[in-house]
Amino acid sequence: MVARPAVVLLSGGMDSAVTAAMARDDGFDVHALTLDYGQRHSIEIRRATEIAAALGIVQHRVMTIDLAALGGSSLTDDSIPVRQGGDEREIGEGIPSTYVPARNTVFLALAMAWAETLGARDLFIGVNVLDYSGYPDCRPEFIRAFEALARLATRAGVEGVEWRVHAPLMKMTKAQIASRAHELGIDLARTLSCYIPDASGQPCGECDACLLRARGFAEAGLRDPALGASPRN
Amino acid sequence: MVARPAVVLLSGGMDSAVTAAMARDDGFDVHALTLDYGQRHSIEIRRATEIAAALGIVQHRVMTIDLAALGGSSLTDDSIPVRQGGDEREIGEGIPSTYVPARNTVFLALAMAWAETLGARDLFIGVNVLDYSGYPDCRPEFIRAFEALARLATRAGVEGVEWRVHAPLMKMTKAQIASRAHELGIDLARTLSCYIPDASGQPCGECDACLLRARGFAEAGLRDPALGASPRN
Repeated sequence: MVARPAVVLLSGGMDSAVTAAMARDDGFDVHALTLDYGQRHSIEIRRATEIAAALGIVQHRVMTIDLAALGGSSLTDDSIPVRQGGDEREIGEGIPSTYVPARNTVFLALAMAWAETLGARDLFIGVNVLDYSGYPDCRPEFIRAFEALARLATRAGVEGVEWRVHAPLMKMTKAQIASRAHELGIDLARTLSCYIPDASGQPCGECDACLLRARGFAEAGLRDPALGASPRN
Repeated sequence: MVARPAVVLLSGGMDSAVTAAMARDDGFDVHALTLDYGQRHSIEIRRATEIAAALGIVQHRVMTIDLAALGGSSLTDDSIPVRQGGDEREIGEGIPSTYVPARNTVFLALAMAWAETLGARDLFIGVNVLDYSGYPDCRPEFIRAFEALARLATRAGVEGVEWRVHAPLMKMTKAQIASRAHELGIDLARTLSCYIPDASGQPCGECDACLLRARGFAEAGLRDPALGASPRN
């Protein structure tokens, strides 16, 4: 198989790590892009760097874009509370405070910019609509609309190249993603899903992201190694 | 008329200054966004700030995003030459080296992110397909595709709000834009269209942007005040 270049959005969480490993195993030369966008905890960036190194990909790049300056999300603004300890059945009902305005549009646009200079036509993003927080820019119709935009927005598109935005986790449950991560040999102890970890990177165990992850591991019959040495769990 | 908020992309050039003034005169509360994206000459940012102040708008924000790190354009990479002194009739034939990969997608995504936190549903961009350099992300079909994406990408879109991307210069000639700038009382001496001005902000007079601007003023029967005190023109 001839390797083709692809740009993979890598966050430091479990889902994007699985996505990157799947892209690699599909025969793509993986160029991973992490956005330092002013999220509450920059520990996410360190974890992304560790994960990229462990995956053995072609290159990893961290770009800074200050979405926090634009406000509007509890993930970038300490004055807006992150929901904790709510009823798990309500996750995904309505759009929560952790939604960062236009985040995935900005991220895919930057991935597309880099891809165009690399000669890549494939982007990967670890979004999912089954066990998710209800963000609009995680849905299949958003992904299809971005592909349509990419065909019109770029030099490659004008030259007739078809862009492809891969979202291989879209229809997987969190349990399936956890199982896949286990099969792929991903070092899950390094992945960080929590919206509000402590300074050492320990998950809170109570935010929506922690609840979804815990349920996924439980349903998969797996232990979450990220919780192993936690003083808070 | 009740003022509504709008986000206007402001570059420091003539076209975006006219666009901002038109948005203001249409009754919008203008929030101007300038992107410092690693373009060759940061003097563009200073000009944008001066123009914003002169327009008397609600607020102006400068965000930094290092597109230069991604490469692929003569506007952000000194090692790629900018075309100068070519045949004017060839401008717009093919995509030139000054194309910055995915630039307008990145810019509109950031404008949309800010708009969502402001409660704005209107974005303005000064793109044009008559007297232009042939960039794919300046065409009407690109603008329509971005509006379609915005409806799916955002909280507002999910709640049924229709996004509108205004491109009021789309079908205007450069001569019509220059005339409109004159009518609107824009301080054209502050606007900078040149791709490769010197350190003092004087235009080169020979790149495609300079040639298009010169032709526009000539056809409009106007003198370009930006050339007034130039030692190079």
